Amino acid sequence: MTLPMVVADDTLPSAVTIYEVGPRDGLQNEASIVPLEVKAEFVRRLVAAGLQVVEVTSFVHPRWVPQLADASELIERLDLRGVADMPVLVPNERGLDRALAAGARHIAIFASATESFARANLNRGLDEQYAMFEPVVARARDAGVRVRAYLSMCFGDPEEGAVPLDQVVVAGGRLVDMGATQLSLGDTIGVATAGHVAALIDAFAAARIDVSSLAMHFHDTYGQALANVLASLRSGITTFDASAGGLGGCPYAKSATGNLATEDLVWMLRGLGIDTGVDLGELVRASVWMADQLGRPSPSRVVNALAAPSPR
Amino acid sequence: MTLPMVVADDTLPSAVTIYEVGPRDGLQNEASIVPLEVKAEFVRRLVAAGLQVVEVTSFVHPRWVPQLADASELIERLDLRGVADMPVLVPNERGLDRALAAGARHIAIFASATESFARANLNRGLDEQYAMFEPVVARARDAGVRVRAYLSMCFGDPEEGAVPLDQVVVAGGRLVDMGATQLSLGDTIGVATAGHVAALIDAFAAARIDVSSLAMHFHDTYGQALANVLASLRSGITTFDASAGGLGGCPYAKSATGNLATEDLVWMLRGLGIDTGVDLGELVRASVWMADQLGRPSPSRVVNALAAPSPR
Repeated sequence: MTLPMVVADDTLPSAVTIYEVGPRDGLQNEASIVPLEVKAEFVRRLVAAGLQVVEVTSFVHPRWVPQLADASELIERLDLRGVADMPVLVPNERGLDRALAAGARHIAIFASATESFARANLNRGLDEQYAMFEPVVARARDAGVRVRAYLSMCFGDPEEGAVPLDQVVVAGGRLVDMGATQLSLGDTIGVATAGHVAALIDAFAAARIDVSSLAMHFHDTYGQALANVLASLRSGITTFDASAGGLGGCPYAKSATGNLATEDLVWMLRGLGIDTGVDLGELVRASVWMADQLGRPSPSRVVNALAAPSPR
Repeated sequence: MTLPMVVADDTLPSAVTIYEVGPRDGLQNEASIVPLEVKAEFVRRLVAAGLQVVEVTSFVHPRWVPQLADASELIERLDLRGVADMPVLVPNERGLDRALAAGARHIAIFASATESFARANLNRGLDEQYAMFEPVVARARDAGVRVRAYLSMCFGDPEEGAVPLDQVVVAGGRLVDMGATQLSLGDTIGVATAGHVAALIDAFAAARIDVSSLAMHFHDTYGQALANVLASLRSGITTFDASAGGLGGCPYAKSATGNLATEDLVWMLRGLGIDTGVDLGELVRASVWMADQLGRPSPSRVVNALAAPSPR
């Protein structure tokens, strides 16, 4: 298998944690219901490839996301106390009840940095969003459960345009003050470029929010995701969200231009000599297997290049 | 039209020259012959979009690339003394004769950094390659014609694997010593990652080859092209090769994973506050027009995102 030549840059972190979102963020917009056992097998293959954190499902109401109605059954089939951390998305207190009952040890909430997207996605304004999440975070922490907070629309918003840095820092700060242990800054519509990324991370650092508690969640809508990862690495970020095979992404964008593909990220980090613990060949095989289950090719460039027949 | 928020980084260059390769590198592998007037119109639209350097064709023998057999007729239809510089590829002395007769003012030669690819592509070893190019460069310079030298396989070679930095610097140095005024370092199979890119540019600088005479030519086979551009900007590079709409690329790779798309490059540079002189909307329209002529969609992420119907 072709692999990049390793040329380390000692100004960058030596190791990175990949927060894999494929089974949840990748599958949630699939129109046809993926069988429970296929989902479980996908997670097992991702863990076997060396991914240390895999967000496996969401306890959203089945009416909104029928694809993930089997959340409890899925996590019963998985080893939540095994080598990999398996967070689950929780939209509200009712979701938290179900997640705790099913034995979740790590949850994620999904907040917005903009009023427009909070209303579009949560049917609430920003203040109501915080009021909704406060008891979720408090009860989870009381139960000894870790809480990641996604913050969406951190760079641009389809209604509001460019989102001011301080607005994002204020919103993220609210979630950290509430008790979130990790904050994932999402470029939901993919408009971030490298200088903007560095400026936002710097703004969080200036507000004394620990950069080690930040994760970056980039979309490849305009092809910028990996350049933005590189800029983030320079700013000290060591956790990146990605989706195996590039599954999913923004439902408003075309399928091939959504989430950053985990394989493309691993390829770059490997070339930079940055450890991820991932076996790229195993990961590509897992994504090709899942693409076969879904009946369409992966949009990941690395998957396509490595899974293609050799030119000679 | 959505555009990225501009956040300049004053450690990066303030302006960049894009060397557009779409009409030559993009079209040369098209199986169906593109009509002469379509080629001319494509070039005119690219120039109208603000591109300052457009490589328009190749004076390769028509037996090898029938698509470009109309090179002389094409440049007769173009304004070689207009606002844009219009270099042409010249494979050997016979090609140079034709290019000079047609009035070319700027040529490009195509050399290899590896013995294997020199033999595969030119049917010559490295020493024979230099012997072939020497009179081409000398005669062109004597005629007052500028000479760019492409150097391919600068990072990895499909036969030889990783290519040592010093081997690339030696090969590039030969071409500069010969009289090439610009050296385009090509990642022909797309395996470069950001640290490798910085190390190669540093190696050229250490050999006292002026970084301002270097251009970088990245392929997006593994999705790394823009991250590699970002690394190159940090190393002081101010000329980048790209292909409008992402046309063409390595003939051994799939069509969607070849040349860096000019639109994706312009988007990133615009977000970084780096001037290119290009009107992105005009450029997208030119690429969509060309995609319609070819009867298949552009692989550029920016073209797809901007040309898609608005989500709301």
